[in-house]
Amino acid sequence: MPNDPVTVAADGTVHLPARSVPPPRGISDTARRYLATPFPIADWPPVSEVAAYRKQIAEVDAGFAAARAQALASLPVEVAVQRMNGVPVYTGVPRRLAAGRRDQAVVFLHGGGMIVFGGELVRGTAAESALQFECRSYAVDYRMPPDHPYPAPVDDCVAAYRAIIERHEPRNVIVAGSSAGGNLAAALALRLRDAGLPAPAALVLLTPEVDLTESGDTFQTMAGLDNVLKHSLMQVNLLYAGGHDLKDPYLSPLFADFTRGFPPSLIQTGTRDLFLSNAVRLHRALRRAGIETELHVWEGMPHGGFGGNAPEDTEVTAEIRQFVAKHWGRTGMSEGSRS
Amino acid sequence: MPNDPVTVAADGTVHLPARSVPPPRGISDTARRYLATPFPIADWPPVSEVAAYRKQIAEVDAGFAAARAQALASLPVEVAVQRMNGVPVYTGVPRRLAAGRRDQAVVFLHGGGMIVFGGELVRGTAAESALQFECRSYAVDYRMPPDHPYPAPVDDCVAAYRAIIERHEPRNVIVAGSSAGGNLAAALALRLRDAGLPAPAALVLLTPEVDLTESGDTFQTMAGLDNVLKHSLMQVNLLYAGGHDLKDPYLSPLFADFTRGFPPSLIQTGTRDLFLSNAVRLHRALRRAGIETELHVWEGMPHGGFGGNAPEDTEVTAEIRQFVAKHWGRTGMSEGSRS
Repeated sequence: MPNDPVTVAADGTVHLPARSVPPPRGISDTARRYLATPFPIADWPPVSEVAAYRKQIAEVDAGFAAARAQALASLPVEVAVQRMNGVPVYTGVPRRLAAGRRDQAVVFLHGGGMIVFGGELVRGTAAESALQFECRSYAVDYRMPPDHPYPAPVDDCVAAYRAIIERHEPRNVIVAGSSAGGNLAAALALRLRDAGLPAPAALVLLTPEVDLTESGDTFQTMAGLDNVLKHSLMQVNLLYAGGHDLKDPYLSPLFADFTRGFPPSLIQTGTRDLFLSNAVRLHRALRRAGIETELHVWEGMPHGGFGGNAPEDTEVTAEIRQFVAKHWGRTGMSEGSRS
Repeated sequence: MPNDPVTVAADGTVHLPARSVPPPRGISDTARRYLATPFPIADWPPVSEVAAYRKQIAEVDAGFAAARAQALASLPVEVAVQRMNGVPVYTGVPRRLAAGRRDQAVVFLHGGGMIVFGGELVRGTAAESALQFECRSYAVDYRMPPDHPYPAPVDDCVAAYRAIIERHEPRNVIVAGSSAGGNLAAALALRLRDAGLPAPAALVLLTPEVDLTESGDTFQTMAGLDNVLKHSLMQVNLLYAGGHDLKDPYLSPLFADFTRGFPPSLIQTGTRDLFLSNAVRLHRALRRAGIETELHVWEGMPHGGFGGNAPEDTEVTAEIRQFVAKHWGRTGMSEGSRS
């Protein structure tokens, strides 16, 4: 057996030697190829460099726009854009919408660290989420920093949701989000609860960024191993917070009091996800509070899945569909059963 | 942001520089102290050195015996030993056994890599599992290598189980195991299924060693970060297999065809568990086959929990109790609903 020169300090700090980590063996070839592909987003500048942010945000969005538009053209879904309570919302409707799914809807909140993947790119979010959830999708183009830090993004989600539940009964609405969108989905549920507004039937939280303080262990252990999120996003988080306390549950929903109620939630992550700790800690917090929740973790999966074309990505979609099929039509908000 | 000199080879191999990983922030003080404590088991010798194994096994067991006996003396539980179908089984009965729990039983299969923690140490296993599951416990002192490699350990579990279901209806029996015992619990369930014998109501698989080929990603990514299992146990696995194929589902239950049926299963692990991949891959395999299963992952937790005295360990017990309360009295074996 290897004689690793690993040492552990008195406080528990582990000193690891340099090492080579081979790709996971127990994943699909497509997934393995994805892990070998560098993700095309460079490090973000310090929070004070607003001009540099504007430039890089524009570059990142432009870099994704062409491929996104091409993918969108071939999808069997109709997308339109409208203002709902003043917020731009892209609606996606599958061309073949099942008869039993005409009343159902998903409100999908896109990821992108609260700074990228907005505007026209949300057209693709609407299309993909409509097909993934097999129902009408409302993809909210919420405002973002640097011009619109917290609470503007959450405010927009609340405003759009209020318009959506005028068209759909809340028990027919699922709120979902990926990464930063998972943060907003959870924050939206807390805002609705605290305002006494009707909850959605359930939440789908995909590799959710629920702790902007980044106190989770996998921010350390998975740094460099997640090929998408290579390390801390703290500067971006500070840009989003705009001076607000990162520990506020509306900014970091992980720290909310869930015994006061929260919708049933599916939580998805992977063993190479920088946000693995975010996901498992939220799952545990919901379990402690007696909230119905499912945790699903995929082998070797980094932040955000394996790019969409791997069998593992298809399996994520299958879990989502099974979960929402169970929850549509049920009243969402449940009181915590334990304190 | 740090500019890590992480590089990724064309095949996806990640080259990580030396680094220091601080203890997790989001865990209890007791848990953090446990992570700073070296686990007192040295590396195991190569599989061919049988005499060295005998010596080290005796030393490890002796090292745990005194503390174990002391802990046992204070526990409110009666322990006895008997032979059941020729197999030594330690029975633990809580002094305060709830009236509604007189017919229920847990069959608990101890861990220890298939080589240690047998004999008199199983007395402690019986006591602790009786209290954890709040019912009569049958802790099987199965034979082990080097003298009794596979299939002797599994054979003993089958033999003991057959005797136990003469005293308890199978729907009142939970089979549980930790680490190597989780392997045996899953292997036992497969053996029962394939022999047409009655299944237990459910399985509780604590950080289970379900893949003796060690093909999981966290055998690489968590090496050195799990303070209990620091790296591969392959030499021990080969000693156990005694020349049998490590990929055989009776040796590595992860590779079984679960569409043919498997009991509902709770699976527990942690984000610093060398066996995290074992756990999440088994959960996914069961989900794919349509088997009822729950995955619970604790932040920063290494293999086997935080030593038993941390609030997180209490939470593991709470999840176990909630799970078994739901499953006792139900017929265990379910056909896979999907193939």
